[in-house]
Amino acid sequence: MKVLITTVPFADKNILPLELLEGAEAEYVINPLNKKLSEDELSEMVSDFEIIIAGTEPITEHVMSKATKLKMISRVGIGLDSVDLIAAEKRGIKVSYTPDAPAPAVAELTIGLIITLLRSVQLSNLEMHSGEWKRYFGKRIANSTIGIIGLGRIGARILNRLKVFGTPRLLVNDISPNLELDRSFKLEWVDKNTIYKESDIISLHLPLTKLTKNMISEKQLKLMKSDASIINTSRGGIINELDLYNVMKSGHLSGAAIDVFEQEPYSGLLKELDRCLLTAHMGSMSIDCRTRMEVEATEEAVRFIKNQPLESEVPKSEYYVQRDGL
Amino acid sequence: MKVLITTVPFADKNILPLELLEGAEAEYVINPLNKKLSEDELSEMVSDFEIIIAGTEPITEHVMSKATKLKMISRVGIGLDSVDLIAAEKRGIKVSYTPDAPAPAVAELTIGLIITLLRSVQLSNLEMHSGEWKRYFGKRIANSTIGIIGLGRIGARILNRLKVFGTPRLLVNDISPNLELDRSFKLEWVDKNTIYKESDIISLHLPLTKLTKNMISEKQLKLMKSDASIINTSRGGIINELDLYNVMKSGHLSGAAIDVFEQEPYSGLLKELDRCLLTAHMGSMSIDCRTRMEVEATEEAVRFIKNQPLESEVPKSEYYVQRDGL
Repeated sequence: MKVLITTVPFADKNILPLELLEGAEAEYVINPLNKKLSEDELSEMVSDFEIIIAGTEPITEHVMSKATKLKMISRVGIGLDSVDLIAAEKRGIKVSYTPDAPAPAVAELTIGLIITLLRSVQLSNLEMHSGEWKRYFGKRIANSTIGIIGLGRIGARILNRLKVFGTPRLLVNDISPNLELDRSFKLEWVDKNTIYKESDIISLHLPLTKLTKNMISEKQLKLMKSDASIINTSRGGIINELDLYNVMKSGHLSGAAIDVFEQEPYSGLLKELDRCLLTAHMGSMSIDCRTRMEVEATEEAVRFIKNQPLESEVPKSEYYVQRDGL
Repeated sequence: MKVLITTVPFADKNILPLELLEGAEAEYVINPLNKKLSEDELSEMVSDFEIIIAGTEPITEHVMSKATKLKMISRVGIGLDSVDLIAAEKRGIKVSYTPDAPAPAVAELTIGLIITLLRSVQLSNLEMHSGEWKRYFGKRIANSTIGIIGLGRIGARILNRLKVFGTPRLLVNDISPNLELDRSFKLEWVDKNTIYKESDIISLHLPLTKLTKNMISEKQLKLMKSDASIINTSRGGIINELDLYNVMKSGHLSGAAIDVFEQEPYSGLLKELDRCLLTAHMGSMSIDCRTRMEVEATEEAVRFIKNQPLESEVPKSEYYVQRDGL
């Protein structure tokens, strides 16, 4: 079978995924453009392949219409906003993913970003690099109110890591609250508006769906305290970037840390704001987690090639989310 | 009595220290230059005062020779490198400090800097602000070798906070090893050269003394792995700044995070290095810790004014360190 690997970098730090494909006698091609593909670029590339080992490039109805041999999509990662699941289902294309692998790396980076924002490290660093010396007061985690929207694999890990810094006030919200977490953490399950209004730091750990698209726009940002900060290491598009820019430009919010963008690579207006920390979708990019994601996605592709039962197919509930937004 | 408060900002977030002084009927003056004072600036300012509530400005033999009424120095913070303890002792000037108050804030910031450096956040942020998109691989704490030199109040807290991220390999060194810590952490007590050679991240939690001045110079930096990073949130001068600049400029080391400098405010060569994260001596600048430092130092000054026993005089061992370097 022929496998198209669209996600890059791939097998950069560990060649095991390529060895697995060779062991299964698969022919593979790694994305020759070496960047996130657009819908058109992907469409022109897919006609020969039975399997895509996919990043976050758009695998739409249109792409699938050009991918006449495609039988399986194996996502390196957890987000499914880039894959039209309903279109895949109609064409009998299987979709698998690696929902657990990115979580440790994303959770750890998020803790680093929380401390960075609470202490204005990103701002002081930019100022120091311009020869300015200004000492910022900050808060410790223990003295902060931290709002987490989305308490799945990543959100719950963040709670666990926050604990050792002393107990912040924890405001949490999830579409299906996991009350088991209350046994270990003193959580306040609140509506999202309460999180916007009362948090010092808000961190988002949500999929991008019809419901979460532009969930945080001008109105929500203006509800936030003027010295609060917001972190998005989940998916671009959940925070409206232009609204974030305008609201911060006006002086509101003390900081933001944005790792994910509507269009990636990102080169938009937020870069004009010194207090907006920007990273290049690096949440899951620890060597160990990235390797695990690539290996798991490749193993799933190899199972498909060998006609073995798949182990991490996307559950039907995700199809309903995409179809109905719920 | 007349009190000169040299450290700035002072009572900026909480006016309790000023209320305490007023309650003791002390006259006080807050540093009118609103910046860290030089030896000469301080010398011209001190003649009228019995007490200095001090930051990190140099309180030298020369300064004391102009401070003919001075009877007490109350340091807001832990470091004593700025105070000539031997000269103070000769003149019968008492010296107190606040050794515990800064620790929680410094330890927490250091954890943030460890994660930042392991994931190249500071570099990606600068690049993104210039419109460049480059995704960096990083490491998680659990997969790293972390070297800590100095396991006192702050170093030990860092161990405690690292634990929740999974167990890194912990290489540690202290002039007087606290083997009690072995009960809670899997520590490898090693010589400093082993720390330089084997660590992915090195963090310094040491006083500046004759022994530690320029402790990390070209030779030590070159022993480090080419993709390792170093953090200094303790005192400027322990790492030789020019050597760090030259070694990093040559391409060695993947990052550094420097919060303390030989000359503050700092505006030196390190600002030319994008992968060198710089902050403006903000380790202890969480509102709660800074307030605690100011209140404790003021309470000690008030005890002196009221002729009550002092509670946090600098112990004689610190005088020996300054005199003998050991």
